[in-house]
Amino acid sequence: MRATVFHGPFDVRVEQVPDAALREPTDALVRITHAAICGSDLWPYRGRESYQPGWRLGHEWMGIVEDVGSMVSTIKRGDRVIAPFAFSDGTCEFCHKGLYTSCLHGGFWAQANDGGQAEAIRALFADGTLVVVPKSVEGDEARLRAILPLTDVMGTGHHAAMSAGVHPGGTVAIVGDGAVGLCGVLAARRLGAERILLLGHQAQRLSLGRRLGATDLITSRGEQAEREVIELTGGGAESVMECVGTKEAMETAVAIARPGGSIGYVGAPHGSEQLNLGRLFGSNIALRGGVAPVRAYLSELLAEVLAGRLDPSPVLDLTVDLDGVPSGYAAMDQRTAMKVMVRP
Amino acid sequence: MRATVFHGPFDVRVEQVPDAALREPTDALVRITHAAICGSDLWPYRGRESYQPGWRLGHEWMGIVEDVGSMVSTIKRGDRVIAPFAFSDGTCEFCHKGLYTSCLHGGFWAQANDGGQAEAIRALFADGTLVVVPKSVEGDEARLRAILPLTDVMGTGHHAAMSAGVHPGGTVAIVGDGAVGLCGVLAARRLGAERILLLGHQAQRLSLGRRLGATDLITSRGEQAEREVIELTGGGAESVMECVGTKEAMETAVAIARPGGSIGYVGAPHGSEQLNLGRLFGSNIALRGGVAPVRAYLSELLAEVLAGRLDPSPVLDLTVDLDGVPSGYAAMDQRTAMKVMVRP
Repeated sequence: MRATVFHGPFDVRVEQVPDAALREPTDALVRITHAAICGSDLWPYRGRESYQPGWRLGHEWMGIVEDVGSMVSTIKRGDRVIAPFAFSDGTCEFCHKGLYTSCLHGGFWAQANDGGQAEAIRALFADGTLVVVPKSVEGDEARLRAILPLTDVMGTGHHAAMSAGVHPGGTVAIVGDGAVGLCGVLAARRLGAERILLLGHQAQRLSLGRRLGATDLITSRGEQAEREVIELTGGGAESVMECVGTKEAMETAVAIARPGGSIGYVGAPHGSEQLNLGRLFGSNIALRGGVAPVRAYLSELLAEVLAGRLDPSPVLDLTVDLDGVPSGYAAMDQRTAMKVMVRP
Repeated sequence: MRATVFHGPFDVRVEQVPDAALREPTDALVRITHAAICGSDLWPYRGRESYQPGWRLGHEWMGIVEDVGSMVSTIKRGDRVIAPFAFSDGTCEFCHKGLYTSCLHGGFWAQANDGGQAEAIRALFADGTLVVVPKSVEGDEARLRAILPLTDVMGTGHHAAMSAGVHPGGTVAIVGDGAVGLCGVLAARRLGAERILLLGHQAQRLSLGRRLGATDLITSRGEQAEREVIELTGGGAESVMECVGTKEAMETAVAIARPGGSIGYVGAPHGSEQLNLGRLFGSNIALRGGVAPVRAYLSELLAEVLAGRLDPSPVLDLTVDLDGVPSGYAAMDQRTAMKVMVRP
């Protein structure tokens, strides 16, 4: 079969690999129908994260089950399933707590030497990982596009909102106008935030952000942006969602949080380790969040999409086939696309 | 009157200063009966925090009201009052939320150029700051000693426990065997923690910690201590209370927290700004806490002390008069005393 393989910075290739197959009785074999390229795929692509040549790519995917292992009980052949970006056994202490990303036997697809930007994938711990999508969506491409972001960015935006303590009537500032930040806008609006400030620098994305529910757009940078948020909110936002992961984004998040507020951070830290702890400490600002346990939110968010109350599909602004994956990476790297959908 | 004045590192003096007096209609004039030296007083004493020569010292105190301004309504002459380590107007957004340390018009006693290691003090915003202690305790020196730590260390330990999410049946690890850490043991026990691991290096303090409720004592350092906690808890403590503020203490706290758990930190950060954010992020460990809004906890904890259910007085292991204050600082600096009570 064909799959996307990392060869080095700025070098991803679609090539022949051994066919995906069941290996454990808890596996499912899934034919990929939809996948996506994630902003976090750009870290290794840009050489900012150590990825080994030969590793597969793609942790956002859904598809049709072709086969299941003997111990799989909730998933059957022919089911459409959606996967979170991490697999989990569904049975350990942390899975029971909903913290699937800390599953004692779980991991990330790349670690399992598999990826979703491919024709098929071996899905580990199918019962604990996959969620079945109702048959009613078959053929409804618009609905399928709305479901795909639940694999990662929509669940991650939701996690940022939950971690930031977004609540009805609240004020939230979202740092980052990428796919996660924009999904964060949707999540904050859905959780009842009254005022949603979106900080970013890409005019098109900001304008999409406004369409999705942002009430204020902040386009300046650094201290100027911080001053604007402080002024607009009369002293800072009680909820801040950090959706980037860079040093600058985290600094901004810390600076614009209201005393007693919470920062929900979901951007994988890249250089943001040096915190202004004095400000966090002096103002009792909580730092919460982390890698999103998307599996915990999948059923809830899927029901919302199916009911027509949630539609994150606008973050997918370019579609390619499997051969187009390398050009999709390039487009996201050069910011000519925000997020690329792959139709193998 | 006489008061304690900072002159420079390792140089605090008790000297004549202008008598404390009412200045604002919201002030009270309080004759100090009991005060204490705080571990945080040692930061300037040791030259690790910029304090100006001439500044007063002492933010833990209680006493008898001698006079009140015309706008004071809840405090009257003759009342025994206890103060938190920060003053607050009691009327602003943050006071209403219980976050008194972020009061828009509040501050710290030293900033008001006043201190409690003195014969008397001008108490700002008396209604918003002071809490009346019932007359029944007069003459009951043991009870008064148990009340004094509510000014700071007991409230701060309680804040650490609340921020760490300590709950009935839970497991908590407390980093630091100073007065705050030991008060943290009391707080954790009171909130129902089943297992309380106390990390420290002073045999006497640890043994007091055990008497106060610690179930396990960890005396090793660094990675060895971390390994022991991880092993004893089967993967980390769901609640960690960081009660020191140094880089090492924060590193330990981050390392021993269980995935999905919370670190409640109350040690004023001194060099702890570089966090292992990768671990916090990867395991969704929350970092909460900060400077304790002790005023919010005073009434609740005072009721507990009056009912005989809480007694933090064992952390006060040396008593001096006003002239003895400099030697009290020296004793705490040299660790021959844990916490010094001052009886002016």
